[in-house]
Amino acid sequence: MTHSRIWTAALVIIGDEILSGRTQDRNIAQVASWLNVQGIRLAEVRVVADDMDAIAEAVNVLRARSDYLLTTGGIGPTHDDITVDAIAAALGVEVVVHPQARATLEHYYESKGGINENRLRMARVPDGGELIPNRMSGAPGIRVENIFIMAGVPHITAGMLDALTGTLEGGAPLLSDQIGCWVAESEVAGLLRATEKAHEDCQIGSYPFFREGKVGANFVVRSIERDLLDACMAALKAGLEEMGCEVVDGGI
Amino acid sequence: MTHSRIWTAALVIIGDEILSGRTQDRNIAQVASWLNVQGIRLAEVRVVADDMDAIAEAVNVLRARSDYLLTTGGIGPTHDDITVDAIAAALGVEVVVHPQARATLEHYYESKGGINENRLRMARVPDGGELIPNRMSGAPGIRVENIFIMAGVPHITAGMLDALTGTLEGGAPLLSDQIGCWVAESEVAGLLRATEKAHEDCQIGSYPFFREGKVGANFVVRSIERDLLDACMAALKAGLEEMGCEVVDGGI
Repeated sequence: MTHSRIWTAALVIIGDEILSGRTQDRNIAQVASWLNVQGIRLAEVRVVADDMDAIAEAVNVLRARSDYLLTTGGIGPTHDDITVDAIAAALGVEVVVHPQARATLEHYYESKGGINENRLRMARVPDGGELIPNRMSGAPGIRVENIFIMAGVPHITAGMLDALTGTLEGGAPLLSDQIGCWVAESEVAGLLRATEKAHEDCQIGSYPFFREGKVGANFVVRSIERDLLDACMAALKAGLEEMGCEVVDGGI
Repeated sequence: MTHSRIWTAALVIIGDEILSGRTQDRNIAQVASWLNVQGIRLAEVRVVADDMDAIAEAVNVLRARSDYLLTTGGIGPTHDDITVDAIAAALGVEVVVHPQARATLEHYYESKGGINENRLRMARVPDGGELIPNRMSGAPGIRVENIFIMAGVPHITAGMLDALTGTLEGGAPLLSDQIGCWVAESEVAGLLRATEKAHEDCQIGSYPFFREGKVGANFVVRSIERDLLDACMAALKAGLEEMGCEVVDGGI
């Protein structure tokens, strides 16, 4: 069996609105799912305030630690949108106006009152930055070194991820299959542990729930190797059935 | 005007299920809102994998940086529940069985097949830990030093937060008021910036949206001082109306 290289990414979510509880985050799950399809594993997420030092610290630690660093939030036209400045500071480069971004914004705002100083803020990039297309509104995302700077509004983030699809090198996608049982996870914890231990390069996750007055759990087996995953799942199913559990394929 | 001390907290969310995109996080917003009511500001969130080193690193950095550190996830009975071990390692203390937690679990499982080795895992605490009651299921949360170890399933987390209500010292709660306008935030960005600058100890957040074919934005003013907040909000409303915007109190 060949072990393929594991590609990793980190995500920095920038925004007081998440930390204040005002806005329910939707980007962690969205970015994580997208990365899985690219064969890239989300290794860590940090949510930081609209604060230059907090952003720069998170960016500098995480861009060194993972293959890719994605950020969401703080790239709009208002005073609290400081992501570009903070990342430029983290990289030790100037902030410059990107000519293509400027042209795109001028065109976008032609019928909307014209360009102005605040709208032009969205054409600013850390020196060396390339644009990530944004089909939803005029303001592009930015790629600079291994950093991908994206909007925070989830459907605009989604459009930028879409534009990036297939452009980031990844490895074998992490595969996963799920089964479910009406059983307390504490009754089968020994089986889960032993099964995972016996199956190298597979991880088993246990996700308990309480529904219709009964406890149950879904079990997810993850691996980048289909054969290993199938063998681990078969062993887990056999073990659960031996204990008298009725196994529901795909989960409950 | 007296500046009161600002109390801060950090949150570590532990779980491969969040990083894999399988589970949509609900705890950031829930914990943030609860902290606000306690007069404690959520300063940073990290989401880390079910990995001893990743958990210990996040815990050690963040417990030193904030008044309180809260964690969610990884305290169940299965092999991937390693939060207690990781935090004990971070603190350099042993893991011990808490007698009261053991008694609670024995009682809880009396009618459910009895206690077993895996269920007893949920009575383990870092040495010196006290219990946080869990009225939903048998397994308690744990308080040790300035760390609060809670369950990851959102309604169980909620029960533990409820049990902690009023027990953590905080400062003046961060107050916030919101207004909304059918205006592109890029048209009023200059006003927002100038208004925030003119009102010390107030922050203005701008949250654009696109609905019914029109762009609009909600503006949130935050401060711990009611008088300052009111003055800032009045200035912002006056400025928006001067620009011809119709202001909707409470937001759109």
